Amino acid sequence: MPHYLRIQKPDQSVAHGLLQGDQVALLRGDLFADPQPTGETVALAEVTLLTPCVPTKMVALWNNFHALAAKLGQAIPPEPLYFLKGNSSFHPHGAPIRVPPSYAGKVVYEGELGVVIGRRAQRVTESEAAGCIFGYTCINDVTAAELLFKDASFPQWTRAKSFDTFGVFGPVIATGLDPSTLTVRTVLNGQERQNYAVSDMVFSPVQLVSRISQDLTLEPGDVIACGTSIGVGSMKAGSEVSVIIERIGTLTNRYE
Amino acid sequence: MPHYLRIQKPDQSVAHGLLQGDQVALLRGDLFADPQPTGETVALAEVTLLTPCVPTKMVALWNNFHALAAKLGQAIPPEPLYFLKGNSSFHPHGAPIRVPPSYAGKVVYEGELGVVIGRRAQRVTESEAAGCIFGYTCINDVTAAELLFKDASFPQWTRAKSFDTFGVFGPVIATGLDPSTLTVRTVLNGQERQNYAVSDMVFSPVQLVSRISQDLTLEPGDVIACGTSIGVGSMKAGSEVSVIIERIGTLTNRYE
Repeated sequence: MPHYLRIQKPDQSVAHGLLQGDQVALLRGDLFADPQPTGETVALAEVTLLTPCVPTKMVALWNNFHALAAKLGQAIPPEPLYFLKGNSSFHPHGAPIRVPPSYAGKVVYEGELGVVIGRRAQRVTESEAAGCIFGYTCINDVTAAELLFKDASFPQWTRAKSFDTFGVFGPVIATGLDPSTLTVRTVLNGQERQNYAVSDMVFSPVQLVSRISQDLTLEPGDVIACGTSIGVGSMKAGSEVSVIIERIGTLTNRYE
Repeated sequence: MPHYLRIQKPDQSVAHGLLQGDQVALLRGDLFADPQPTGETVALAEVTLLTPCVPTKMVALWNNFHALAAKLGQAIPPEPLYFLKGNSSFHPHGAPIRVPPSYAGKVVYEGELGVVIGRRAQRVTESEAAGCIFGYTCINDVTAAELLFKDASFPQWTRAKSFDTFGVFGPVIATGLDPSTLTVRTVLNGQERQNYAVSDMVFSPVQLVSRISQDLTLEPGDVIACGTSIGVGSMKAGSEVSVIIERIGTLTNRYE
């Protein structure tokens, strides 16, 4: 199962690479169009991890897990309900999530599976959608929870979820996985807070790609944040949060 | 008042240019970092107009005009209420807006002023915001109106406004204007449907840039759609709609 990274090297240049133990084997060319090894490797310890791709958009799901819908008393939606996380929020593994200076309320983590598009998807069927998925990543869909319904006339999904540093994903894109076998865990300051099966999703990754692509074209590198399940909670300044999906990796950030 | 364009030339190459009567004087370099004339001109009639810039995001306002708020009985919001239009919706002057195959309901035009960012804005004051604005453009914020409140649990702002071809803006970016003196008109099949003064805005362009930049960083080329006022209405297949802002230009598209 290859694990793709995007890194900044000690000389400040940026490259894609494949994780090989504690080394990164560098790649040249478009990540989504058969990139080739350069033959160069660098030690993982010597590089800075960047977001593993640069999406043109991140489509994020609301109410996509049966268990959370049951807990909140929400009906199962007949079609995917989504918003966008602003591109300026995208943020890598290891870099601190920042307390927004303009907002004093509760900020929550939401551990999620991310679907990374590898081939343009415009009005694709579910079987075509499978071929449009490049791989999977971990997401922390950070949310300024008290903004969501602060204004009774207009739920502020975009704003609450798009503060700078709130769109955390990585550390890698893993390919060759069956997502229905995965479990998403979130650990806050060493304590497990979320532990849910991806198979509990209302709309699976291929269903999401197919249905969303009826509305808007998904481009290579775009990410779908599949929504979260039970166990969402607050971060305090100084908290460390990890989203862990075995066979993908561990996405860890401090909140400060 | 310079008018900036982005064009595809007859040889398929893409360039920025300045409108000079019926000619386009081509530019080299970054549009937002002192681009220089190449000395080459091409006839406007021989080029295809593209969106005048390529935003990393389009932030779009809801309930930002006093007249429309009064008509709809909405309170004046204490802070800007916004969503994002998906990047895959961006669409130029002259290209047909497409009826979405996946949606059979009412589709409406919304004529708006667009603010184009020229310099990165992160937590800027109003006086700093003025220096972050490059210029202004016309926007048709096309909306699948019946999707907005189709699901009682989750207003679908992003989806209703992000279908492919629904983020129409251009034809130019005009610089050196005082936006408070402008009037937005929308003409549907030859009949004027909207005619409102930008000075009726709840939050002016510099206020929008300053306040939104407290939440998320605005990048050069990003666009703020300032919201619409009264006169929004439906387009039918075959309709031609123009958003006209004198001293900027006329943004015309067919809906088919």
